[in-house]
Amino acid sequence: MEDFVFQAGTKYILQKDADKLCGREIRNYADNVLFVHYGDVFIHSSGLYDRIKNALADENIACFELPGVEPNPKVSLVRKGAELCKKEHIGCVLAVGGGSVIDTAKAVALGAKYDGDVWDFFTKKAEVVDALPIGAVMTMPATGSEGSTGAVITNAETAETLDVMSDMLRPKFALMNPDITLRIPKQQTIYGIIDMFSHVLERYFSSSVQVALTDHLCEGVMRAILENSRRLLNNMTDYDIRAEFMWTAIVAHNGLLATGRNQDWATHTIGAQISATYNSVHGSTLSVLFPNWAAYVYKNHIDRFVQFANRVFDVEINHYNPEETAVEGIRRLREFFTGLGGPAALKDIGVENDKHFEKMADNACKFGNIGGLQSLGAGDVLAILKLSA
Amino acid sequence: MEDFVFQAGTKYILQKDADKLCGREIRNYADNVLFVHYGDVFIHSSGLYDRIKNALADENIACFELPGVEPNPKVSLVRKGAELCKKEHIGCVLAVGGGSVIDTAKAVALGAKYDGDVWDFFTKKAEVVDALPIGAVMTMPATGSEGSTGAVITNAETAETLDVMSDMLRPKFALMNPDITLRIPKQQTIYGIIDMFSHVLERYFSSSVQVALTDHLCEGVMRAILENSRRLLNNMTDYDIRAEFMWTAIVAHNGLLATGRNQDWATHTIGAQISATYNSVHGSTLSVLFPNWAAYVYKNHIDRFVQFANRVFDVEINHYNPEETAVEGIRRLREFFTGLGGPAALKDIGVENDKHFEKMADNACKFGNIGGLQSLGAGDVLAILKLSA
Repeated sequence: MEDFVFQAGTKYILQKDADKLCGREIRNYADNVLFVHYGDVFIHSSGLYDRIKNALADENIACFELPGVEPNPKVSLVRKGAELCKKEHIGCVLAVGGGSVIDTAKAVALGAKYDGDVWDFFTKKAEVVDALPIGAVMTMPATGSEGSTGAVITNAETAETLDVMSDMLRPKFALMNPDITLRIPKQQTIYGIIDMFSHVLERYFSSSVQVALTDHLCEGVMRAILENSRRLLNNMTDYDIRAEFMWTAIVAHNGLLATGRNQDWATHTIGAQISATYNSVHGSTLSVLFPNWAAYVYKNHIDRFVQFANRVFDVEINHYNPEETAVEGIRRLREFFTGLGGPAALKDIGVENDKHFEKMADNACKFGNIGGLQSLGAGDVLAILKLSA
Repeated sequence: MEDFVFQAGTKYILQKDADKLCGREIRNYADNVLFVHYGDVFIHSSGLYDRIKNALADENIACFELPGVEPNPKVSLVRKGAELCKKEHIGCVLAVGGGSVIDTAKAVALGAKYDGDVWDFFTKKAEVVDALPIGAVMTMPATGSEGSTGAVITNAETAETLDVMSDMLRPKFALMNPDITLRIPKQQTIYGIIDMFSHVLERYFSSSVQVALTDHLCEGVMRAILENSRRLLNNMTDYDIRAEFMWTAIVAHNGLLATGRNQDWATHTIGAQISATYNSVHGSTLSVLFPNWAAYVYKNHIDRFVQFANRVFDVEINHYNPEETAVEGIRRLREFFTGLGGPAALKDIGVENDKHFEKMADNACKFGNIGGLQSLGAGDVLAILKLSA
């Protein structure tokens, strides 16, 4: 077990109409707010936009807006938001949306307290020392950004997708109204599930030893996702299951599952390159890459993959040939993702050829080797991309 | 799944010498502190007392002391500490010890901010509105009080053991140095393990439905305790296992495992009566009572006890006769506790006769029926006490 510091002070509220509490919660931090959202049809047709505006008005909180967040959110919009915060002396940032909106809000909160270009935090030229307080109204459980310390932003000019991590970026509150998620389309729901499952995998595949508690917690979260996925596909408007997924996305990613252990994150790093190059949906890249990453590295970590197969997917252990068990676990992982409707190959998500593979592999390793379970260089990444083609 | 609000902002730090960080952490809140401890041989012989005093001196934090905490901590000492805080204008309370010390520190922190008698909070005559910030240096993983919102205090004059719960009582920081716990005697270690396992049981046995995530999390924590207990009994000075237990005690009791579900707590309430009457060790009462509580209630909750037997203790389900599986799970629970060295009957812990049983049963239900899985009145409690004799 490794040393750790863990503090996750986000106030999590799950209830019908939780979104209406945003005014009261913001009131603890500021009397004005930047309301960040997609600006899409859903926020208006669902009535959510009006509920947020009314909740803010009820607490006399002056509201500025930053609509227009896209999937794989762009630094250009972040810069615009940070400028607005500086100009209007805004004291709090409220994200109303999914991971892209929350990550945008986090980056804006950083930029608002920094004189230089906010992209400096992503290229590690600047270190986080301050940020505006951030709140979140979750509409799409997936990234768990509403409870996490990180943000991932894309720079379209440089075709880079990079992250920043800091305790300063952990939202002060996360409001979960399961009703909002009842009508998320199946495809988005699935990618959200694959994303949260992958967040557990990145922590589960660790080289730390004697971490039985977090092993069992990771396995428990994965089993809950498997069980609830089956139920949700049978009834996409089940309130309780939708509620469970809202909470699961956070538990999967708020850092608890990584206490006392190192983490992997190679797959996310490779996936970010694909998203930066092809604007692919994050969950779709994980669906393709994770089983192929596993197939590439498992031979050096048979025990860990046997434990995964047995405890998560109930594969009976073949003690004569443990490798067979490890391979079966990886097959079940792929089957879980494709069974949900996730893609199995890069060609299924529009990545038709390998002309960018070498560049993506180099970019994935631009800050050095990646992967906590097994250290991977650009050559390894290229091999995994080819395996995933 | 039920609505919930969950916020556990304690800063958890696990590392060798974590205790030395107490000065730096207190500095965030105050420039003086009340240092609460047992005042026993251990704190001096281990060097811990000196390390704490030095860490405080290094940060120029003025230190007042409240030694003399006993197991089943008494309100008389709490009153003394609260007076001292008022007189010396102390701004923070630091607990260095196990659950009794931390609970005492919490109650002192409450009393310091209240004009009346601190016992009012326990009898529910007063409501918590303020408390001094609390920090903890954990020496004995068991109650998880270092991450929880509650405190349990005994009033020797009235022979009552009562609790108070408030987010104000959650420690600001919890410092875990596994080295301190390496030489905890076997008997205390065992009671600590039984206590943390019981904290999970109290949350696991819930009448809430569709709570798959927290079911799996509870099961995972219990399996980790089973696995690590076996290892610890083989090597009582294993640093990593001791570290795991420090963290497990907190995860078992900081509220995460109860998100979205109701809880039981009948067993703890009955156990508190036994401790108040016979000054019994908390863990010993749970060792006796939990299997007997289970034996008393299981017939109305066969499915839940089958799940427990199967998922926690790997009992193969007898689908022809699920009750047999439920009963076998309860037998395994009892076997786990007695296998560790815990008692199975009240007579084993000096509760030789039943002359106080009726009074204890009445006291357990003085605020109404108890138990979230199954509501129990004084007659039920009496039956469980007799079953436990």
